[in-house]
Amino acid sequence: MQTELSKQLGVEHALFGFTPFPAVAAAISRAGGLGVLGAVRYTAPDDLKRDLDWVEGHVDGRPYGLDVVMPARKVEGVTEADVEAMIPQGHRRFVEDTLARYGVPELADGEASGWRITGWMEQVARSQLDVAFDYPIALLANALGSPPADVVRRAHDRGVLVAALAGSARHARKHRQAGIDVVVAQGYEAGGHTGEIGSMVLTPEVVDAVAPLPVLAAGGIGCGRQVAAALTLGAQGVWLGSIWLTTTEAELPSRALVRKLLAAGSGDTVRSRALTGKPARQLRTEWTDAWDDAGGPGTLPMPLQGLLVADAISRIQRYEVEPLLGTPVGQIVGRMNEERSVQAVVDDLTRGFERAVDRLNRIAGRSRQ
Amino acid sequence: MQTELSKQLGVEHALFGFTPFPAVAAAISRAGGLGVLGAVRYTAPDDLKRDLDWVEGHVDGRPYGLDVVMPARKVEGVTEADVEAMIPQGHRRFVEDTLARYGVPELADGEASGWRITGWMEQVARSQLDVAFDYPIALLANALGSPPADVVRRAHDRGVLVAALAGSARHARKHRQAGIDVVVAQGYEAGGHTGEIGSMVLTPEVVDAVAPLPVLAAGGIGCGRQVAAALTLGAQGVWLGSIWLTTTEAELPSRALVRKLLAAGSGDTVRSRALTGKPARQLRTEWTDAWDDAGGPGTLPMPLQGLLVADAISRIQRYEVEPLLGTPVGQIVGRMNEERSVQAVVDDLTRGFERAVDRLNRIAGRSRQ
Repeated sequence: MQTELSKQLGVEHALFGFTPFPAVAAAISRAGGLGVLGAVRYTAPDDLKRDLDWVEGHVDGRPYGLDVVMPARKVEGVTEADVEAMIPQGHRRFVEDTLARYGVPELADGEASGWRITGWMEQVARSQLDVAFDYPIALLANALGSPPADVVRRAHDRGVLVAALAGSARHARKHRQAGIDVVVAQGYEAGGHTGEIGSMVLTPEVVDAVAPLPVLAAGGIGCGRQVAAALTLGAQGVWLGSIWLTTTEAELPSRALVRKLLAAGSGDTVRSRALTGKPARQLRTEWTDAWDDAGGPGTLPMPLQGLLVADAISRIQRYEVEPLLGTPVGQIVGRMNEERSVQAVVDDLTRGFERAVDRLNRIAGRSRQ
Repeated sequence: MQTELSKQLGVEHALFGFTPFPAVAAAISRAGGLGVLGAVRYTAPDDLKRDLDWVEGHVDGRPYGLDVVMPARKVEGVTEADVEAMIPQGHRRFVEDTLARYGVPELADGEASGWRITGWMEQVARSQLDVAFDYPIALLANALGSPPADVVRRAHDRGVLVAALAGSARHARKHRQAGIDVVVAQGYEAGGHTGEIGSMVLTPEVVDAVAPLPVLAAGGIGCGRQVAAALTLGAQGVWLGSIWLTTTEAELPSRALVRKLLAAGSGDTVRSRALTGKPARQLRTEWTDAWDDAGGPGTLPMPLQGLLVADAISRIQRYEVEPLLGTPVGQIVGRMNEERSVQAVVDDLTRGFERAVDRLNRIAGRSRQ
């Protein structure tokens, strides 16, 4: 499974695996794909440095990448406290009332919120990059629009390819204008922030819009047939995120969440603003239902919503309050029915890919050589 | 492009084309696919008989099919007038107020509503079948669940394969239990009634759920790469509906609508209950916006909504009121940018399919024989 892009990056398979877990990222690279570590959860640069050291020591010299969430335009002089102050009291009450209805305890004094995400703030993302550029990362991906021009230059000066996610051909063209090297076409099926165009339509549309730039297909991919289909649509690789959540190397915050993922079907996710203020696909729970209910206060815009719910989500996870317990995940969750090693997932993807090619050749009247 | 199903039906390409237009259905069959004529718009059996005669005379002996909208369970003793009486006056006022706001004239005295759909009523669908079974149709498709058991038996007695649309693996399993021969997996991207699972996820899920029954992939397919991708996902053929709307053989009610379709992008559709009361993908218009607005009265359940809006849609089409003018169509509308003959569309699909197979073989390291 080799494309121009996979050859350029020196990976065996055109499989790009996004994950917040260092052990998963390293295992993906060792298995012949490109593991991409998500940095958004790291607030302290030293924590990121520690985990990149670990990854570097566990990839057997294979390439790997980093994913940041960096806004192209920054808001000058706005602190987290300023943003916190914009949250209406009625919304804070709604959070507390909802948690109280399910009897969710408070965190213990001094117990840190495990969920709070600050990596989207430009100063945090830049400190992450200061760390990351000391490592031989092969790819820098940005999940929130094109990264700032100076960051693209800095990456290119170091020979690092820059990727950016897009949910429409229009976004993809903006990335090309910003000097991005690789566009990740993120279809409606995907976990996390998604647009409304399904992968079947989005992938070839983005491929045509930015050609000859390489495109990775994201959204709905978790078996070899889907890998083959995405490459058939014109992608130079596939970008998989959800499928790694139930690998044995993943470190989800609770076993209850693993069980929910293993049990969920493809219809058990929802594209909701409950988590960040922008539409993000996630497990449908009584928590997302409460936010999406017409009788509720409605969600706040990004980044207010994320700050508003951060502690609540930490409490729900800490105490494993099952009806409220969720996570970003795509529709492929319906195929995540057992815990497997990363290597087993990659083997399944590559073998399934070969079988799918065989079958397509039979349909096309071309026998295998 | 040959699968077990295409061979069984005696078609050259595993392309199934659904269309309300006899000229399009016949042209699809002549071009080597299977044209499937939608019957839901026919109220009088004689009209259907006239058009089936025409199709029969224009397929050069190639196979073709019929698509009906038949509920598995009937409601005894309910007439159209009974159903009309259930429509609240507030909803009727909302329709009239909205039309008045755009200055939409009334139909002339005696001018028939061109939109009113009665084919969903079981007695009408059965009268359509009484007509259709006199013709050598190869496939009978049902768009609304499994058809009643006696209809399946009647089709099988005549050697007619029965297909049914499904938006989830659960629906697909119900079809298998009902003795259906072919499941059409209708993805989120599709025009008309759709579920929420994207084709990339739905197709292999339905294939696995009903194996060894053949599955046709529907939703988001309009170029050869997408045909190849759908077959790669395990389908035995593709089911295309939207792509034919802008063929030269199609007879859309107005040129203004053709222009809107040619101009629309993949993001210009919406999954709305405005047309039938069930979620159906269609062009997003100020008409769908009015129904989907939180300040409106909300839509009525099927079949009330369809009866409520029938005359309004006829008036909008008759007078080409552009802001309100829409039609069911899938996200593939973004690729429908020129009027072409059915033959040109089929040529494009088959050539694009071959190129996509070539490319996938290069990625898989298999050169073409």
